[in-house]
Amino acid sequence: MRLLAEAQVEDVAVGAALLGTGGGGNPYIGKLLAQQAIRRHGPARVVSLGEVADDALGVFSAMMGAPTVMVEKIPRGDELVRAFRALEERLGRSVTHVVPAEVGGINSTLPIAAAATLGLPLVDGDGMGRAFPEVQMCTPTIYAIAATPMALADEKGNAAVIETVDNRWTERLSRSITVEFGCTALIALYPMSGVQIRESLVPGTLSLAEDLGRLLRDGHGIDGVLRRLRAHRLFEGKVVDVERRTVGGFARGEARIDGVDGDGGSTLRLRFQNEHLLAERDGEVVATVPDLIIVVDAETGEPVTTEELRYGFRVAVAAAPCDERWRSAAGLELVGPRAFGYDLDYVPIEARMSAGAGRR
Amino acid sequence: MRLLAEAQVEDVAVGAALLGTGGGGNPYIGKLLAQQAIRRHGPARVVSLGEVADDALGVFSAMMGAPTVMVEKIPRGDELVRAFRALEERLGRSVTHVVPAEVGGINSTLPIAAAATLGLPLVDGDGMGRAFPEVQMCTPTIYAIAATPMALADEKGNAAVIETVDNRWTERLSRSITVEFGCTALIALYPMSGVQIRESLVPGTLSLAEDLGRLLRDGHGIDGVLRRLRAHRLFEGKVVDVERRTVGGFARGEARIDGVDGDGGSTLRLRFQNEHLLAERDGEVVATVPDLIIVVDAETGEPVTTEELRYGFRVAVAAAPCDERWRSAAGLELVGPRAFGYDLDYVPIEARMSAGAGRR
Repeated sequence: MRLLAEAQVEDVAVGAALLGTGGGGNPYIGKLLAQQAIRRHGPARVVSLGEVADDALGVFSAMMGAPTVMVEKIPRGDELVRAFRALEERLGRSVTHVVPAEVGGINSTLPIAAAATLGLPLVDGDGMGRAFPEVQMCTPTIYAIAATPMALADEKGNAAVIETVDNRWTERLSRSITVEFGCTALIALYPMSGVQIRESLVPGTLSLAEDLGRLLRDGHGIDGVLRRLRAHRLFEGKVVDVERRTVGGFARGEARIDGVDGDGGSTLRLRFQNEHLLAERDGEVVATVPDLIIVVDAETGEPVTTEELRYGFRVAVAAAPCDERWRSAAGLELVGPRAFGYDLDYVPIEARMSAGAGRR
Repeated sequence: MRLLAEAQVEDVAVGAALLGTGGGGNPYIGKLLAQQAIRRHGPARVVSLGEVADDALGVFSAMMGAPTVMVEKIPRGDELVRAFRALEERLGRSVTHVVPAEVGGINSTLPIAAAATLGLPLVDGDGMGRAFPEVQMCTPTIYAIAATPMALADEKGNAAVIETVDNRWTERLSRSITVEFGCTALIALYPMSGVQIRESLVPGTLSLAEDLGRLLRDGHGIDGVLRRLRAHRLFEGKVVDVERRTVGGFARGEARIDGVDGDGGSTLRLRFQNEHLLAERDGEVVATVPDLIIVVDAETGEPVTTEELRYGFRVAVAAAPCDERWRSAAGLELVGPRAFGYDLDYVPIEARMSAGAGRR
């Protein structure tokens, strides 16, 4: 167990935005919420997966919806607690651990706020090892762990507890409730025992996010961050076009980046659904989900979310290998290129890079 | 207390379809469900409002969605029970009485099926004295009774329990869940004490529906039915045009009827949202919600639902006075013409008729 204080939240927020591959919501709002909760209730207690007892009851605490809307709709604060309480009432027992659903933007710092506010330990791990846009897209689904009962609450005082036949139905139903709530909801879901937490989650991702943030803060720059992630530089250029729509509660779109320096004369196209899904260089696919496509400010190395992408921004794009479980058949069925509508086989970024290096 | 047996369900179904003013869903499916439940579990016990104890817990049991879809999606049967159980679990106590939400089509006979299946008494009354398309449009709302907690279940095995800040939000949220469920849901809502049931419901409407069905069966025809309802004949003619769309989980549309006999040369236009909302004769409004606009087969007096309206059908149209509470300011705010988007003052049908008689 270690304590996470207000000052460290900053590093977590920056690092999580890097791992969030453009999605997971705006890190700024989540950071403020977490810092405020720590000031009021004291630091969050962070425990590793190995420290969670078998009979624990852990729950993902997250915000659901389109990041484009989240930026404008700051949570009131008690929605998070109301979602938790509604789920506890349904389960007939108290939740013992707060678990991050993903690393990325608001959903890395919101669980810190939840843990501090509720006085519960926060698990150092998550259900994706990155961010993904849909509820069923997390490692517990690979282990046949049900997303429901799931609770949702909005800032007006509305709430819902749902129970579905599978995790894809959880996504469908919770998405339409979220849209009705005004495109954002605070959610509590995937009730898990300690055994399930240890077997199904990606370990150590909260600490990883904090490390990444500290590397940037300490001046290790883009290269320091990419080394820590075993990531490969793909491209550097200027954003020349961004198309973005909020569709069915998601921020979907694409961005075009014209290369500079060594990439001059080339164009990189990024396609996203909350998170970056696909990178194409001059029409050729160079990286896909589930690997992490990471966009940073070319000067500072600071992460750039999909909703911050705008004309003229000079960015560097890199790709990092995902958790090994996403590369299994079950993993790729959930989050491979085809799960997002792209008729492509997944090729691990390491394999793409060594093939590409051979060709050059 | 009296028993309602299989044979009587037929009369209730016919009478309820008359009171349903074109909506409430197809009476045939609900009739089959009720008869099957009675064959399996014995007759339903019907109690008057006066027989309900103060500390009772009554709940509306109904089907929600577009009647056009309900016709093609027959409930599996256990959705109704699952919705009930989900609500009981949320409330932490057992429901003691099944209460019809409305009279009209499936939602008059479905509570019979629920009462027989669950072995609970069925209350002889309802929350509308007719059918209306939205959740907040019932007399308990006038008495500030909350629609939530509300449970919804679908035929696939999905379920939701919602809690909202007011009854309009209940409508919004449950409607979007119903649409996601495939446009129909079985619902349990408006948990009420015996005191609330007695003060807020329209009494005796189950018996009234049964009476109306018996009048038709005994050959009293259209006139017998209209007399019992203190209804006024408005028009007789042939359906020449029906426009119908399923929008946001509702069946919306309008029908044009060309007059015959005494109404020859005139046209009646009916506008509906599941139920008939407005009747215009040659462009002049002759009846509006909340009064009951009733369409029947001109030969037999059998009720015609909005989804059964089709070209060439010869129909008679009548209007009957609604429950007095709908004529209050609070009632008209919920279900008057303006609640459905028509910028019209409500004029009680009796007043319209005496004015019209004066002019003729």
